[in-house]
Amino acid sequence: MMAARGLDALLLSTEAEVRYFTGYLTQFWQSPTRPWFVVVPKSSKPIAVIPKIGAACMGRTWVDDIRTWASPDMVDDGVSLLAETLREVASKDGKIGLPMGHETHLRMPLADYDRLRGMLGGLNFIDATAIVRNLRMVKSEAEISKIAHVCQMVSNAFDQAPRVFNVGQSETDIFRAFKTECLGQGVDDVSYLVGGAGAGGYGDIISPPSARVVEKGDVLILDTGCTFDGYFCDFDRNFAFGDVTDFARRAYDAVYRATEAGFGAARPGATCADLFLAMQRVMNDAGALGSEVGRSGHGLGMQLTEWPSLTVQDKTVLKTGMVITLEPGMTFAPGKVMVHEENIVIRDDGAELLSRRAQQELPVIG
Amino acid sequence: MMAARGLDALLLSTEAEVRYFTGYLTQFWQSPTRPWFVVVPKSSKPIAVIPKIGAACMGRTWVDDIRTWASPDMVDDGVSLLAETLREVASKDGKIGLPMGHETHLRMPLADYDRLRGMLGGLNFIDATAIVRNLRMVKSEAEISKIAHVCQMVSNAFDQAPRVFNVGQSETDIFRAFKTECLGQGVDDVSYLVGGAGAGGYGDIISPPSARVVEKGDVLILDTGCTFDGYFCDFDRNFAFGDVTDFARRAYDAVYRATEAGFGAARPGATCADLFLAMQRVMNDAGALGSEVGRSGHGLGMQLTEWPSLTVQDKTVLKTGMVITLEPGMTFAPGKVMVHEENIVIRDDGAELLSRRAQQELPVIG
Repeated sequence: MMAARGLDALLLSTEAEVRYFTGYLTQFWQSPTRPWFVVVPKSSKPIAVIPKIGAACMGRTWVDDIRTWASPDMVDDGVSLLAETLREVASKDGKIGLPMGHETHLRMPLADYDRLRGMLGGLNFIDATAIVRNLRMVKSEAEISKIAHVCQMVSNAFDQAPRVFNVGQSETDIFRAFKTECLGQGVDDVSYLVGGAGAGGYGDIISPPSARVVEKGDVLILDTGCTFDGYFCDFDRNFAFGDVTDFARRAYDAVYRATEAGFGAARPGATCADLFLAMQRVMNDAGALGSEVGRSGHGLGMQLTEWPSLTVQDKTVLKTGMVITLEPGMTFAPGKVMVHEENIVIRDDGAELLSRRAQQELPVIG
Repeated sequence: MMAARGLDALLLSTEAEVRYFTGYLTQFWQSPTRPWFVVVPKSSKPIAVIPKIGAACMGRTWVDDIRTWASPDMVDDGVSLLAETLREVASKDGKIGLPMGHETHLRMPLADYDRLRGMLGGLNFIDATAIVRNLRMVKSEAEISKIAHVCQMVSNAFDQAPRVFNVGQSETDIFRAFKTECLGQGVDDVSYLVGGAGAGGYGDIISPPSARVVEKGDVLILDTGCTFDGYFCDFDRNFAFGDVTDFARRAYDAVYRATEAGFGAARPGATCADLFLAMQRVMNDAGALGSEVGRSGHGLGMQLTEWPSLTVQDKTVLKTGMVITLEPGMTFAPGKVMVHEENIVIRDDGAELLSRRAQQELPVIG
C-alpha cells in the first residue's frame, strides 16, 4: 500500500497507531507531556523515536531500532531526532504518509509539526489514513480472540446484574459495583463506563453517573468498554427496576429486533450502509422519533470505536475478520432513548457474536 | 490575557481544554471518531460546537450556546459549523488563539484543520498555549479539594497493601487487587496504574503488569492516577517482599530525602528548576547513576500530568494554588530504578501535602 502511493515512510504519533505497529502497550499515554513517534520505512522494520522513559518498555517489543531523547525538553522535544530519522529513510523530495483523515489526529504540538516540516524542506507530508484504516479494520485471529475474551468476561459481569444492582442505590454506587464486578471477572481495566437511569427511560448515553438514587419504574443503561491486553469490548445492557412501562418494553423490543436485522445483514460484501438501513427500517416501523447517536454501530479493537461507521454515508464493504458493534438506538418518547449494542466479527459465511446475546425482553430487577 | 494578545477568540479541542472552559465531563472522549470544539469569544460566554450526541450532557453545564451537528459526518464533520461560529465572533482579519505549544495537540483531523483555515481566509491562527497554561496551572480551592479527596482515598488504599499484596501473586493479580481496593475506597476510576516488581528492584515504571509471580526479595512499585469528579491524584508507593537488599533500602532513603528537600524548597517564588536541583543534589550525593524519567515532578489536575515540569530548564515560578507532584527518581544499580512521589499544593507560606506521606523506610511485606 505504501508503494502504491509512492511513500518513503509512514509517520505515526497516537497510542493506537504506535501500538499497532510496535506492540508497545502502556497507560503512560495518559500523560500528555511527551510526544511519541514511530516511523515505518518502506522497506525495513519500524523505528521508534521516543522519550527515554519508554526505552525499557519498548525494548520488550519486536522493534530493534529504538531512538530516544531526554524528554520533556522545552527546547527540542524530539523534533530534530525525528527529522534526522525521516531524512535517513526518505529521499530528498520524498513523501511521508501521515494520518490526516477522519477519526485521526496528530499527537504532537502543532508548533513542533511546523518546525519539523521546516527542517525537512523538500519532503512532502501526505494523508495516509487509508493505509492505516485498511490495515486496522481487518483483525487477525489473535486480535479477535482478545476481543472475544473481554466480551465474555463482561457478559459474565452483566449476568450478575440482578445480584449487584438494586433500587435505592445511587447511579454512582451502581457504576462502582459494576466496575468491581468486571475486574473480578478478569478484565484489565474498565476504561469506559457511561449511561444512567431515568423514570421510564434514560435521556442520554454518554454521561457519568449522578448521585440520583434509582427508583422503581426506572430504566437503566450501562454501556461499557473494558479492555483485555489492550483490546476493547463495547456493548451495553438495559435493565428495568420494578414496574416497566409498555413504552419502554416496546422500545427495547424494537432495538432488539433491529440488532437481529443488522446481524442478519452482516456478511462479507455487505456495506456499512446496508447494515444501517436494515436496522433503521425496524426502528422506523416501530415508530422511532429519530436518534442522537449519529450511527448504528462502528469498528472495535484497540480503541473503543474505530472505523468504519454504520451510517448511510459509509459505503465500506465488510470483509472477513472485521470486528464491529451493532448499536441501534432510537428516541421513543420526548427525551427518552433506547440503545442496544452487541459485538460481532464478520466470518466467511456471516456474522458471529462476540458478546453473549442480550435477553429478548427488557430484564426487570426486583 | 486574550485582550493583551489581541485575540478575538480561543479555539479548544481536547478533553481537558473543553472541560476546563465548560465543565463538560464524560468518558466519551475514549472514542476518537468525533471532534469536539469550544470557542471562547473575547467578550462573551463559551460556545460549544459539538456532535449532537453530546447535547444533553453539555446542556447540564453552564454553557448556553450549544451548536450541534449530526456526527460522524464523512463529508463535513463539524468544519463548516465551526467556521461559521468563528466568523461570527471574529473580525475578518482577526486572530484566533489555539494551543500549539508544549504538552498540547489539536484533536481534529489535520485535513479538516486545513479546510477550516481555507474557509476562514483572512483569519490568523496563533499559539495560545500560554493563556491556557497560565489559567490551568493555578487551581481553585474547589479543584484542590477534589485532588486532595482522591489523594486521601488512594492513601487509604495503599495502607491496605500488607493485607492485599502477597508473595505468590502475579503482578496482574496485584494490580487487579489494588484497583478493586481503590474503587472500594471511593475513587471514580483507576485511570492509570503502572509499575512492576523485580528482584532487588524494578527496571521501569511505565509498564503494564506482567504474569510474573512476585517472590521474596522483590521490590514492587505501583504508580497510580485515580480520579474523583474528573481530577487526578498521581503518586506511587514502593514495597519490598521478605528480605530486602541494603542497596534498595538506601535508594529508598535517598528518594525519600530528596522528596523532603523538594517539599522544603516548594513555596511561592521558587522556580521549578529550584525544586529539581534541591532533589537532584540529594540523589547525586547518594550516588545516583542518572534517571530515565526526564524530570522530578510535574503539575497535576484534570490530567495525570500537566504543566509545569520540574526540570533544570523549566523556570516557571511557583504560585499559591499550584498543585504539583514531587517525583524524584534515580537509577541506583544497572537496570534498577527507585522512584518516589507525593502530591502537594503550594500555599502562601510553603507546601502542603495532599497525599499522605509515605513511610520513611521501605515498607516490607511478609
